[in-house]
Amino acid sequence: MSQFDFPLSELEVYKPERTEPADFDAFWQKTLEAARAFPLDARFVPAEFGLETLDVWDVTFNGYAGQPIKAWMMIPKGQKSKLPCVVEFIGYGGGRSFPYHWLSFPSCGYAYLVMDTRGQGSVWSHGDTPDMDDSTSSPQVPGFMTRGILSPETYYYRRLMTDAVRAVETAASHPLVDADRVVVTGGSQGGGISLAVAGLAPSVLAAMPDVPFLCHYRRAVQIIDSYPYGEIVKFCHTHRDKVETVFHTLSYFDGLNFAVRAKAKALFSVGLRDETCPPSTVFAAYNHYAGEKEIRVYEFNNHEGGELFHLRQQIAFLKTIFS
Amino acid sequence: MSQFDFPLSELEVYKPERTEPADFDAFWQKTLEAARAFPLDARFVPAEFGLETLDVWDVTFNGYAGQPIKAWMMIPKGQKSKLPCVVEFIGYGGGRSFPYHWLSFPSCGYAYLVMDTRGQGSVWSHGDTPDMDDSTSSPQVPGFMTRGILSPETYYYRRLMTDAVRAVETAASHPLVDADRVVVTGGSQGGGISLAVAGLAPSVLAAMPDVPFLCHYRRAVQIIDSYPYGEIVKFCHTHRDKVETVFHTLSYFDGLNFAVRAKAKALFSVGLRDETCPPSTVFAAYNHYAGEKEIRVYEFNNHEGGELFHLRQQIAFLKTIFS
Amino acid sequence: MSQFDFPLSELEVYKPERTEPADFDAFWQKTLEAARAFPLDARFVPAEFGLETLDVWDVTFNGYAGQPIKAWMMIPKGQKSKLPCVVEFIGYGGGRSFPYHWLSFPSCGYAYLVMDTRGQGSVWSHGDTPDMDDSTSSPQVPGFMTRGILSPETYYYRRLMTDAVRAVETAASHPLVDADRVVVTGGSQGGGISLAVAGLAPSVLAAMPDVPFLCHYRRAVQIIDSYPYGEIVKFCHTHRDKVETVFHTLSYFDGLNFAVRAKAKALFSVGLRDETCPPSTVFAAYNHYAGEKEIRVYEFNNHEGGELFHLRQQIAFLKTIFS
Amino acid sequence: MSQFDFPLSELEVYKPERTEPADFDAFWQKTLEAARAFPLDARFVPAEFGLETLDVWDVTFNGYAGQPIKAWMMIPKGQKSKLPCVVEFIGYGGGRSFPYHWLSFPSCGYAYLVMDTRGQGSVWSHGDTPDMDDSTSSPQVPGFMTRGILSPETYYYRRLMTDAVRAVETAASHPLVDADRVVVTGGSQGGGISLAVAGLAPSVLAAMPDVPFLCHYRRAVQIIDSYPYGEIVKFCHTHRDKVETVFHTLSYFDGLNFAVRAKAKALFSVGLRDETCPPSTVFAAYNHYAGEKEIRVYEFNNHEGGELFHLRQQIAFLKTIFS
Amino acid sequence: MSQFDFPLSELEVYKPERTEPADFDAFWQKTLEAARAFPLDARFVPAEFGLETLDVWDVTFNGYAGQPIKAWMMIPKGQKSKLPCVVEFIGYGGGRSFPYHWLSFPSCGYAYLVMDTRGQGSVWSHGDTPDMDDSTSSPQVPGFMTRGILSPETYYYRRLMTDAVRAVETAASHPLVDADRVVVTGGSQGGGISLAVAGLAPSVLAAMPDVPFLCHYRRAVQIIDSYPYGEIVKFCHTHRDKVETVFHTLSYFDGLNFAVRAKAKALFSVGLRDETCPPSTVFAAYNHYAGEKEIRVYEFNNHEGGELFHLRQQIAFLKTIFS
Amino acid sequence: MSQFDFPLSELEVYKPERTEPADFDAFWQKTLEAARAFPLDARFVPAEFGLETLDVWDVTFNGYAGQPIKAWMMIPKGQKSKLPCVVEFIGYGGGRSFPYHWLSFPSCGYAYLVMDTRGQGSVWSHGDTPDMDDSTSSPQVPGFMTRGILSPETYYYRRLMTDAVRAVETAASHPLVDADRVVVTGGSQGGGISLAVAGLAPSVLAAMPDVPFLCHYRRAVQIIDSYPYGEIVKFCHTHRDKVETVFHTLSYFDGLNFAVRAKAKALFSVGLRDETCPPSTVFAAYNHYAGEKEIRVYEFNNHEGGELFHLRQQIAFLKTIFS
Repeated sequence: MSQFDFPLSELEVYKPERTEPADFDAFWQKTLEAARAFPLDARFVPAEFGLETLDVWDVTFNGYAGQPIKAWMMIPKGQKSKLPCVVEFIGYGGGRSFPYHWLSFPSCGYAYLVMDTRGQGSVWSHGDTPDMDDSTSSPQVPGFMTRGILSPETYYYRRLMTDAVRAVETAASHPLVDADRVVVTGGSQGGGISLAVAGLAPSVLAAMPDVPFLCHYRRAVQIIDSYPYGEIVKFCHTHRDKVETVFHTLSYFDGLNFAVRAKAKALFSVGLRDETCPPSTVFAAYNHYAGEKEIRVYEFNNHEGGELFHLRQQIAFLKTIFS
Repeated sequence: MSQFDFPLSELEVYKPERTEPADFDAFWQKTLEAARAFPLDARFVPAEFGLETLDVWDVTFNGYAGQPIKAWMMIPKGQKSKLPCVVEFIGYGGGRSFPYHWLSFPSCGYAYLVMDTRGQGSVWSHGDTPDMDDSTSSPQVPGFMTRGILSPETYYYRRLMTDAVRAVETAASHPLVDADRVVVTGGSQGGGISLAVAGLAPSVLAAMPDVPFLCHYRRAVQIIDSYPYGEIVKFCHTHRDKVETVFHTLSYFDGLNFAVRAKAKALFSVGLRDETCPPSTVFAAYNHYAGEKEIRVYEFNNHEGGELFHLRQQIAFLKTIFS
Repeated sequence: MSQFDFPLSELEVYKPERTEPADFDAFWQKTLEAARAFPLDARFVPAEFGLETLDVWDVTFNGYAGQPIKAWMMIPKGQKSKLPCVVEFIGYGGGRSFPYHWLSFPSCGYAYLVMDTRGQGSVWSHGDTPDMDDSTSSPQVPGFMTRGILSPETYYYRRLMTDAVRAVETAASHPLVDADRVVVTGGSQGGGISLAVAGLAPSVLAAMPDVPFLCHYRRAVQIIDSYPYGEIVKFCHTHRDKVETVFHTLSYFDGLNFAVRAKAKALFSVGLRDETCPPSTVFAAYNHYAGEKEIRVYEFNNHEGGELFHLRQQIAFLKTIFS
Repeated sequence: MSQFDFPLSELEVYKPERTEPADFDAFWQKTLEAARAFPLDARFVPAEFGLETLDVWDVTFNGYAGQPIKAWMMIPKGQKSKLPCVVEFIGYGGGRSFPYHWLSFPSCGYAYLVMDTRGQGSVWSHGDTPDMDDSTSSPQVPGFMTRGILSPETYYYRRLMTDAVRAVETAASHPLVDADRVVVTGGSQGGGISLAVAGLAPSVLAAMPDVPFLCHYRRAVQIIDSYPYGEIVKFCHTHRDKVETVFHTLSYFDGLNFAVRAKAKALFSVGLRDETCPPSTVFAAYNHYAGEKEIRVYEFNNHEGGELFHLRQQIAFLKTIFS
Repeated sequence: MSQFDFPLSELEVYKPERTEPADFDAFWQKTLEAARAFPLDARFVPAEFGLETLDVWDVTFNGYAGQPIKAWMMIPKGQKSKLPCVVEFIGYGGGRSFPYHWLSFPSCGYAYLVMDTRGQGSVWSHGDTPDMDDSTSSPQVPGFMTRGILSPETYYYRRLMTDAVRAVETAASHPLVDADRVVVTGGSQGGGISLAVAGLAPSVLAAMPDVPFLCHYRRAVQIIDSYPYGEIVKFCHTHRDKVETVFHTLSYFDGLNFAVRAKAKALFSVGLRDETCPPSTVFAAYNHYAGEKEIRVYEFNNHEGGELFHLRQQIAFLKTIFS
Repeated sequence: MSQFDFPLSELEVYKPERTEPADFDAFWQKTLEAARAFPLDARFVPAEFGLETLDVWDVTFNGYAGQPIKAWMMIPKGQKSKLPCVVEFIGYGGGRSFPYHWLSFPSCGYAYLVMDTRGQGSVWSHGDTPDMDDSTSSPQVPGFMTRGILSPETYYYRRLMTDAVRAVETAASHPLVDADRVVVTGGSQGGGISLAVAGLAPSVLAAMPDVPFLCHYRRAVQIIDSYPYGEIVKFCHTHRDKVETVFHTLSYFDGLNFAVRAKAKALFSVGLRDETCPPSTVFAAYNHYAGEKEIRVYEFNNHEGGELFHLRQQIAFLKTIFS
């Protein structure tokens, strides 16, 4: 991919107007209250994967509407005192897979929880959490971008973002986790969710949104048509009379609106050739982000961003944050 | 597309073994009984689309779990006595659109009902019926092939096929429809649904499955990987430990198992270069079909099959059936 | 497709300079006079397609050079008095197919004629009219964009646009047609032809060019290279010494030059992501259009434009025009 | 491309049944007699291209229906006595270009004539000969495979193959050409035409069909759908009721039917991964070829075949033939 | 990808004839002796990556021609006694990246060494080892499949496979490694290298070739043309006179010839839809493998094979092997 | 390809800042001196290809590091006195092939030498010269763009450009060549090499860089990602920490830096839709070119540029230059 978006000098100052519904905060307050009306009921069941350096738990907690959500938790073996914790959210289409997928952060000496994504987990890594109730009890091949999109109440991401807030609470509830030092992270969709949590959960110490998705939808669908943003294009292409309804719904779930509410320190990343999450949508969120912040720019990268080069940056950032 | 499947001479005798679960009939009896426990409650509301030669109704009836399903009904204007009726089901990803899409059969002098497809209707024509309840109240961009696929009870097509049986009952309930002369039809997914209805609803006079989908899944996923069958491939590719579960579920929804139960006269069609619904999967259903039957073969066609050439065949077939 | 052309705000005022040859009017006057020197000789032969709500005629009339051109005509059954009439032209590569393809306008209570496209009708719907004389007597797989392009006299579209003017005269000659209320329409190539007829046939009451093709060739070939405009690119790519000759020829057939001569009321449509007929070429024609005009903009659509959503707009427009 | 056709051992004995119309010879006798009723009228006009080692002439002769056909002729400079001559026909979509394109054979010391292809010459090299008369006076972007295909009388290749026979007569008429030592050659379409000439013109000493096209159409369209054979697929795909008519026409132009009539020595070539002219269609012609013959097999090549490696083979073959 | 290769029942018994040069063993004995004439000189330099559960060393040893080869070594922290060791080789185009990429095996409690691939490491993960000497001192974008392919002496894989044998010796030389319990593994190219090492280094306890590449070249290039096997196709396509030379060279590096010499216990994997390393090439190696062996078949997978599902199998296999 | 780069009016004045290392001239002086420390040792061996109008020699001379480089030389037969000479360099991936490929210039009456490209010659025409020494003695499938790219000393193009300077010296050493009238030319990579030679070898009379490659790398990799420039993208994409090193190396090999040093008359060409060597990179070199210059613009062409139309321009240019 060539550099199809604005040049870097323009990206660095790109701060587009946001579209924020008047009842944004009310909507989310009501949503989280409803979820918290259910007991969290976090269960940590030891799981055997042959790992000798880490303890692993198969986690279940109650997310949106009290529905059971799966996760993995890992902590270095033999740990006695409380540790800082990294909570990770997963990219679009993926599931929690097996713990082998997530060894880096716990091997660096932190507690770690990765949350399964409801309904997803059938495209590039398997998941175990269905979207709704038992009557449709398996993850599936997407799309999810347009599920329930005709109203903020029914939109898929209302459920998923609520799960994510509850996942942080789950991690914090673990006896070996220091609840004051919880950091959220994730790539792509996981980055978008991290932003949402940073905006919704003031307790979070830091956020590391990596090539974040779910930001500035209107521009995204104008400059690219690749998936997953392309699912919105497809929907509006067919439902020509529902365009404004769609973007009204999305305004409740736009990373820009979460960014202006965030207080946590943040480390972003962006690929200048990212045709899945175009750089202008990432910088739009970054430039609106209200907390202390840094961004790493990967000039020759598409949606993969900095990969392990960026992981090194994140590990250095955590060392500073946690010390 | 070249002719990638068996040559025609082999297709004509291709009758593979079926995989039929022991409780196939019980499963469907239980399923339909549960749906019929809800009142059908078919409502026909006149709709204005500027059509001068036809009466149009916006139809709602109760399908699976009593959920409201939309449809269009059309009848030649000024009709006083009962007419034979064609009931149509829609291809994958499409919705009921506007009545203009469906003028051929009613303009030939028949009553006509086209059923919206729950959840679909966001890819190539718009629909108005969500899959489940109000909490996810909009159609969405697919996929649907793997929704709830880990159990026959939760599988998406259980709901859709049940809706289809109820759609036939809805059409038959209209005062201007002759309930003894109802024919089902549809292309691709609509053809697969027609087969299911032919197997489940003995009252149907004839079936016209056009390049039918939803037949002989195991072979389909071996010889092609295009969508929608490819969604099953994708699911099994990720959930390597769920392959047998998936095919067990599918055995309750395989056109071959409906075909052996069908009594209605049938007119099939097939494209010899069809890479969406490969010809061997269509002939597998045709050769197992228990009723009187004919098939039209389109040698140079892919999934579009015979298009209006085949419509002429269908209109001739209906003339014979109804006379 | 993303929004690759100008943003909407610029499109709305985009009115590029036209390239008009000095003898444009003389060329077309001479061309039409030569065609009219042949008798029109419109023949209407009843055709049987099983339609109960409409009368159908297989039409033949004499077009360019007196060559026989095919069409279908349909009128609601039992009609006694004169009706307004819609004349439709077909998109690139298509033929008149069977009447089932064209039921919407006649079912709305109007007379309707759809003209076959000489030589075309082998790509997406079949046609029955060869381009030239009997010695090459079948439609063929295109391209047509460069046939005879080295001179306006020999260019393919000279013949086709002349046919179209004669098609309007054919429709007007029918005893059940009100010759003062003839409207032309069509999508893509059919839209371009509608514009040409609006410029050449002052008798036409209104025009509904839908995502029109054949407009502002020079820009079209700069911003896209997809077919059919791409055939011109291919020709110039090979015949590097013929570029100016080619664009001189095309200036006699450019929708912009027809648009400035048009008097009929017009309803245009455009897809903002149309990569076959880019929006700037459509707005270039629209902004130059001399008659009263409206345009419907489909923000999320490619060349399919508004489809049945736009048909509803057209039906509403016709109701106003004809009342 | 992988090896998608039969393995070599089967290809070497693949000799499918031919479909030959009863009046094949009568058709061609009548066709050639009609063409020869026009005077050949070969004109050789010296042309300036800066070449110092060769004389170049811009050639015009009368082909099918006496229409003027262009060619280039080249002979080593300073030649006094008669030379053997190579006559070449061009691949699909190409035109005679400039003489630089054709230097190999004349630089080897032979007279050489390359015939322009009527109507083609707009895709990969430019041509100067229109298909029909002045009223459509420019070459164009194809397709040609379906032009006039509904009857052998009107089919495009009737005209082109007749031109080719006349091109041989043109070459033979030149004072520096030894009419008893004329060889025909060409790649792809040029190879197919060479075969036709070998079957129609007994005077030809040898033929070198290189990866020949226009052979065994029925199999070609079954195993590939790439262009140009794919144009036939496209036509039959649309005109579902014309399939038998199409293949009846093609039987008059099938290389297999020319091959059984050929007497000239032949050097064929074939690429085992050729997806434009599949190897089984080439071997079908080769195995039916009635004259003395050899074939060079290029195992790792697609339609480019042996390229200059094969040219070396041809030059060696000519040395033997002409000595 | 659909199932394009033999069906599973045929694959399970597919044992094609091998092509083995008479001096195969002599060639490799000479090659390894020459490499061992250089001191191994394995250096283990502690490296800081923030990992708290593992010790990490940046390794350099002398490979082919005594050239310095890079690797990472990892061992669970605080280890005092000797451990079994896994040595891994990397897939085509990749380099050793950062240690985060390779945490699974050491986290399971084993010593672990991953060898950088000379010259590669610029496509999907970065490497640090050039192919030859300092004069071309950086890894590069491939291809490598044809480097020096005109002779076994100069072929790239002679160097790489020799490095791999030396890597095993390097691992075994570490004070915390139990030299009698070294296992080799790797995916794709890494799997092919594992097979080579199993054939060349009798000291190896077990091999886990995962979807192995570099097996049965002749069949591979016939049924697929994707990269990297496609680089051989490309070479032969251009160098039509070098085909036999190429396959002679490859016979010294064919996994089938290593397989018949192997004694180590083996766990293979294969994807039935693998279009990079087709299943018949994998089964050809497996069926010829002389040691005790098992294979895991992934029916719905392409070249990714079993991924973490297969890792679980490998971890279980290691537990058995090492106990 | 559409016109994706700047419009022509902007291209004509596009003269971006150059990045030139301080020791550019010193680097090249040192490089050429080192090469010239080896004897040129040009050998001309008569070669037999059946050509009757030209003498052909198989040429070997010593290039970079004294390594043997192959070439073909051709001169019109029977020549006695010295001739002007054209020296040609080959496009990326190609080799010297057979002499038939290169007949145009010698057939115009000039001496002609075409240099083989070290290491290349396996993609579209075969070559005979390996990159380095005998230990990797065959050309290979690319890429070459990143070979040794981490330092100017080791970069592949240092070797190739040095060869090219020596090729000119080789041609000039032939007894039938007039050393004062040597012209360099080539397309794409051959055009880039021509520019380098024009900057490095003051003796050259003229240069004809055709759609030149190897110019203004930084912009090239921003606006396209196609190969071969895309190999640099791929390298930087993986080696995120080496981006500045890469562009530092490239600055020694940038056509812009050669252009400002050139004195020879020049004829450039450019395709306005060239997505391999984008027009702005070509105009950047052209506008910086210090000698007398002309450029031919091909508006509708991609990387093929003017092809034989441009050859006619070159032949006319040579006639002027040499007279």
